[in-house]
Amino acid sequence: MGTLSIVALLHGPDRPGLVARVAGWIFEQGGNILHADQHRDAEENVFFQRVEWAQPSRGDVPQVAASFKAMAHLELGMECQTAISNERARVGMLVSRIPHCLQDLALRFRRGEMRGELVCVVSNHPELRHFCESMSLPFHHVDVRASGKTEAEEMQLGIFKKYKVDLIVLARYMQILSGQFLTDAGVPVINIHHSFLPAFAGSRPYHQAYAWGVKIIGATAHYASAALDQGPIIAQDVVRISHRHTVEDLIRKGQDLEQTVFAQAVRSHLEYRVLVYKHKTVVFD
Amino acid sequence: MGTLSIVALLHGPDRPGLVARVAGWIFEQGGNILHADQHRDAEENVFFQRVEWAQPSRGDVPQVAASFKAMAHLELGMECQTAISNERARVGMLVSRIPHCLQDLALRFRRGEMRGELVCVVSNHPELRHFCESMSLPFHHVDVRASGKTEAEEMQLGIFKKYKVDLIVLARYMQILSGQFLTDAGVPVINIHHSFLPAFAGSRPYHQAYAWGVKIIGATAHYASAALDQGPIIAQDVVRISHRHTVEDLIRKGQDLEQTVFAQAVRSHLEYRVLVYKHKTVVFD
Amino acid sequence: MGTLSIVALLHGPDRPGLVARVAGWIFEQGGNILHADQHRDAEENVFFQRVEWAQPSRGDVPQVAASFKAMAHLELGMECQTAISNERARVGMLVSRIPHCLQDLALRFRRGEMRGELVCVVSNHPELRHFCESMSLPFHHVDVRASGKTEAEEMQLGIFKKYKVDLIVLARYMQILSGQFLTDAGVPVINIHHSFLPAFAGSRPYHQAYAWGVKIIGATAHYASAALDQGPIIAQDVVRISHRHTVEDLIRKGQDLEQTVFAQAVRSHLEYRVLVYKHKTVVFD
Amino acid sequence: MGTLSIVALLHGPDRPGLVARVAGWIFEQGGNILHADQHRDAEENVFFQRVEWAQPSRGDVPQVAASFKAMAHLELGMECQTAISNERARVGMLVSRIPHCLQDLALRFRRGEMRGELVCVVSNHPELRHFCESMSLPFHHVDVRASGKTEAEEMQLGIFKKYKVDLIVLARYMQILSGQFLTDAGVPVINIHHSFLPAFAGSRPYHQAYAWGVKIIGATAHYASAALDQGPIIAQDVVRISHRHTVEDLIRKGQDLEQTVFAQAVRSHLEYRVLVYKHKTVVFD
Repeated sequence: MGTLSIVALLHGPDRPGLVARVAGWIFEQGGNILHADQHRDAEENVFFQRVEWAQPSRGDVPQVAASFKAMAHLELGMECQTAISNERARVGMLVSRIPHCLQDLALRFRRGEMRGELVCVVSNHPELRHFCESMSLPFHHVDVRASGKTEAEEMQLGIFKKYKVDLIVLARYMQILSGQFLTDAGVPVINIHHSFLPAFAGSRPYHQAYAWGVKIIGATAHYASAALDQGPIIAQDVVRISHRHTVEDLIRKGQDLEQTVFAQAVRSHLEYRVLVYKHKTVVFD
Repeated sequence: MGTLSIVALLHGPDRPGLVARVAGWIFEQGGNILHADQHRDAEENVFFQRVEWAQPSRGDVPQVAASFKAMAHLELGMECQTAISNERARVGMLVSRIPHCLQDLALRFRRGEMRGELVCVVSNHPELRHFCESMSLPFHHVDVRASGKTEAEEMQLGIFKKYKVDLIVLARYMQILSGQFLTDAGVPVINIHHSFLPAFAGSRPYHQAYAWGVKIIGATAHYASAALDQGPIIAQDVVRISHRHTVEDLIRKGQDLEQTVFAQAVRSHLEYRVLVYKHKTVVFD
Repeated sequence: MGTLSIVALLHGPDRPGLVARVAGWIFEQGGNILHADQHRDAEENVFFQRVEWAQPSRGDVPQVAASFKAMAHLELGMECQTAISNERARVGMLVSRIPHCLQDLALRFRRGEMRGELVCVVSNHPELRHFCESMSLPFHHVDVRASGKTEAEEMQLGIFKKYKVDLIVLARYMQILSGQFLTDAGVPVINIHHSFLPAFAGSRPYHQAYAWGVKIIGATAHYASAALDQGPIIAQDVVRISHRHTVEDLIRKGQDLEQTVFAQAVRSHLEYRVLVYKHKTVVFD
Repeated sequence: MGTLSIVALLHGPDRPGLVARVAGWIFEQGGNILHADQHRDAEENVFFQRVEWAQPSRGDVPQVAASFKAMAHLELGMECQTAISNERARVGMLVSRIPHCLQDLALRFRRGEMRGELVCVVSNHPELRHFCESMSLPFHHVDVRASGKTEAEEMQLGIFKKYKVDLIVLARYMQILSGQFLTDAGVPVINIHHSFLPAFAGSRPYHQAYAWGVKIIGATAHYASAALDQGPIIAQDVVRISHRHTVEDLIRKGQDLEQTVFAQAVRSHLEYRVLVYKHKTVVFD
C-alpha cells in the first residue's frame, strides 16, 4: 500500500501570508506538497487554493485532514473541504433514452479512469435497462409521466439516498428538475447541456443553432441550479460546422462533444478540482 | 497577362439537372472549370453554387459573364452574381479608436492578400489618422457627437459614395448604425463583434463573458442588419480561457481572434464565396 | 421502405466536361442528385468526385449502379466504386488489451451511428473477451506469442475471411502487421496512431511528446501500409497540453482524441467519403 | 505612479518547505503576492516557481529584488531571475523579406501590448525598410550574401549590442544562424518556425505538409539552439486543412498562425513567464 495523500480545497477572504501559512502548516506535520495551485479574484478579494500533499504516517491521515480543516476555518477564516486518496465518491445517474453519455461515462468508471464509483442509474424510460444490466449496473425505472413529477422526484431521491450517492449526474436527462429536488438532494448535480451556453439554452439547441446559422457549436457541463441552464459552468468544448451540415449532422457531431465534456467535468469534480464561487467556477487543472 | 477567370455565385429553387446545365454551358463556351462547389438546402429546396472557370479568349470575357448571368436568370430561374478575375472591389472602413482590426486589415490589403483595395477610412475620432497617413490611406474624421447621428451618417455615406466603395467594413466601430444607413449604403456592410454570437450581443461582451464564467470566448464577423448583432454570420472563432484570466486578459486574447476572423470574413466576401440566404450564409471555402 | 440511393466515388485524369457528363447521365436515368462534391488536383491533373443520388425505381438500382460504373470506366476513363444505401459493410477488428477504442467503436455500431456492422473482434490477449461477450460480439483470441507471428497472421486472416469482412480496423492493436498480411487481407485496414503523425511515429509516442516538450498532442487515423505509421492519413485531431501534464495525463487526454478520431475515420470510410491518391486522401465531408 | 511589483522566476532541486519559505520571506518584507504559480517535475525532482508581488516602499524595490535573489540562491539553492515592473526589455529583430510577422509584432509593440520596446530591425534584404521607416523603427540592412555569413553575423551582433538588446527575435528570418552567433549574442533568441514541430523541420514545411497529406498544420515558436529547429518550444498552434487546400492556401492560413504564435511567445518571454529546463519550457500563464 502506498502513502496516502490529502487534497484540500479552500476559499475565503484574501489576506497576506495565506500561502505561507498553509505550506508551513503542512511542512510542520511532515507532509510533502505534491501539487498546489491557488487563485486570487482581485476584484472580490477572494483567495482560492487546491493543495494536495503526501502524508506519510498512515494511521494519522484522517486526523491530519481534520486538523487542517479546523486550522483553515478557525485561524484563516476559510471554507475548506478535504478528501483522502483512498476514499471513493459514489455517483448516481439520471438518464432518459439517449444512450451515449451514459455509455461513455459508465465505461470510464469501469476502466478505472474516474476517482469514484458509478453506483446506480435511474431513468424515466426503460430502454437503457438492458445496457446497464450487461454492465452489472443497478438500473431503476421511475415513470415520471405515470407518477407525476413531484412523486417521481421523491422516488428518485429515495433511490439516490439508498445508494448514499455523493454526486448526481444528468446524462442527457430530458426532464427539468424542480428547485425542490436540487435542494433536497443535498449533493451537487452536474448536467450536460448540448449547446455552448449561454447561447441556445432550453430545448432543441441544435435546431436553434442550425436556424441561427452559427459556424461553431458546443457543449457545456455545469452544476444544475434552480434557473434552467444557468448554473456555474465547469467545462465547455466546441466544434466547427458549416452550411453543409444538417441538424442531424449537428446532433451527431455534438454528441462527441457532449460525452467528452461531460466526462471531463465529472472527473474534475471527483478529483476535487472545482470550487464554485458566485455564479462561476474555479477549476484547478 | 494570364488567362482571365470568371466566378459566378448562384442560388434559386432546386431542380434536377442544374449542375449538368451549368457545367455544360461553360464547356460549350470553351471555358474550363477551375473550382465548382454547390450546396442544396433540402428543407427549403434551394440550390446554391459557386463556380469559377478559366475563359481563354480574353476579349470576350465580360460578354461571357453577362451571357452566363442571363442564362442563369432566364433559363434556370436563379439569382446570379458574376465577377471577373481582373476586377478589384473597393472597400471603405468605419472605425473608432481601437486600432488592431484596422491595422491588421490595412496591412493585409497592402501585402496583396485581399482581392480588392482599401480606399478610405472614416472615423468618429481623430486618433487613428496618424497611422492611416503613414500608410498613405485616406482618413476622414466625422465627429458623430458634434454633428448628430443623422447628419453624421449622411456625411459618412457621402464619403463612401465619393470613393465608390463596393463594401463597407466596421473595424470595431463603436456606434450603432441606423437601419437607414444600411439601406442607403446600397452595398454590404461587414461587422466584427467581439463575442461568440448569439451569446453576449450588445455592449461590453468580454465583461458579460467574464461575469458568466464561460470557459471559451469568441469573435463573430457578420453582415450588419437592422437588428443589432443579429445579421447573417460569416465567420467565427474561439479561444479557451480559465478562471485565471481577468477581463483585461479576455480583451487581449479576444483581439487576436477579432482581427483574424474579421480578415477571414472580408476575404471570403471579396472572393465571392459568401451567399446570404434567409438569416444564414453559405460560405464556399 | 424509402427510395434507395447510390453513392459513387470516382477518380481519374481531369478533362473538361466531366461534371456535366456525370450529372447529365444521372439526370437521364431519372436520378436526383442529393450530394455532389468534387475536387481537382491541379498539379497532377486528377479529378475526384463523390456523387450520391436517389434512384427512384427500386428494382433497377443495382443495374443503374453497374451501368454508371461502366460508363465512368469506359467513357470517362475513371476508376469508380459504387455502393447502394441498403448495403451494410462488414467490419472486423484487431485489438490488444487497451479497451477504449474497442468499446467506443462497438457502442457506436450498436447505437446505429455507423453505416455497417461490427462482426468480429480478434485479439492477441484474452482480457477484452468479457466485454465483447457482454455485447454479444464474437471474440477470438489468437495468441501471437505462442503461435509465432506468421502463423498468427494466417489465423487472423482466416477468421476475417470466415466473417467476410470488408474492412479491418486496428483499435490500438500493439503488434506490427507484416506487409504480407496487408496484401493478403484484400480489404482496407484502418489504424489509429496515438500521435500527430508524422511527429512521433513508432512506439511510445506520448513519452516522445513529453520528452520533446510539445505544447499540443494529437491522434491520427490512417490506412495501414507496409511502411509503419506512414499510410495515407484520414483524420487527425489535437489537444493542448502544458508543462503541468505528466505522461499519464497525456495518455488520458490522448485517449479521448484517439477514440473520436478513430470513429470519425471509420465512419468516413464506411460512408464512401474517402479516396486514396498517391500518399494522400481526399475526404469528402 | 503606482506601486512597483517584482517578478521572480526560480528553479532548482525540490525539497519540502520551498513554497512556505518564499511566501514567508515576501510577507516579512511587507510584500503582497499578486500571482504565484509553481510546478514540480516529479521525475527530475526539480521545483519551478514564478512569483509576482507588490512591494510598497518604492525606493527599496531594487534592493528587495536583489535580496530575494540572494536568499533564493544561497539559502534555497535555486537559480533565480528577477525583474521590476518599471523595467522595459529591449528587443532586436532579424527579418528577411516576408513581412507579416514583423508588421504584426511591430504594431503590438506600438500599441503597448508588450512589456518591452522593439528597438531595431536588421534584415538581409532591403524590402522592409520602407515599412520600418514609416513606423520610425531603425532599420539596418546587412547583406549576408555580399559580406559572407561570418562577417555578416558579426555585423548583426554589433548592431544588436549597440542597441543593448535583451532579446533577439527572428521574424521569419530565412538564414540559419551559426552556433557561434547564438553563443556570442549572450541573450535569448526566439524563432518562429512555420510547422508543428517536430514535424516538418527544415525548409519548405508547408510543401512537406502538403506532400504528406496531413489534415492539420501548425506553427511553433521556440528558443533557437545550435540544433536547427530543435530548441525548447514556447508556444504552438494549429489549424485544420483539407484536400481542397493548395500549398498557397497552407501558406496563407499558416501565416495567421505564425504571427499569433510568435507574438504569444515573445509576450510570455517578456513577462518573465518562461523557464527553460533541459529540452523543455515551463510557461506560466
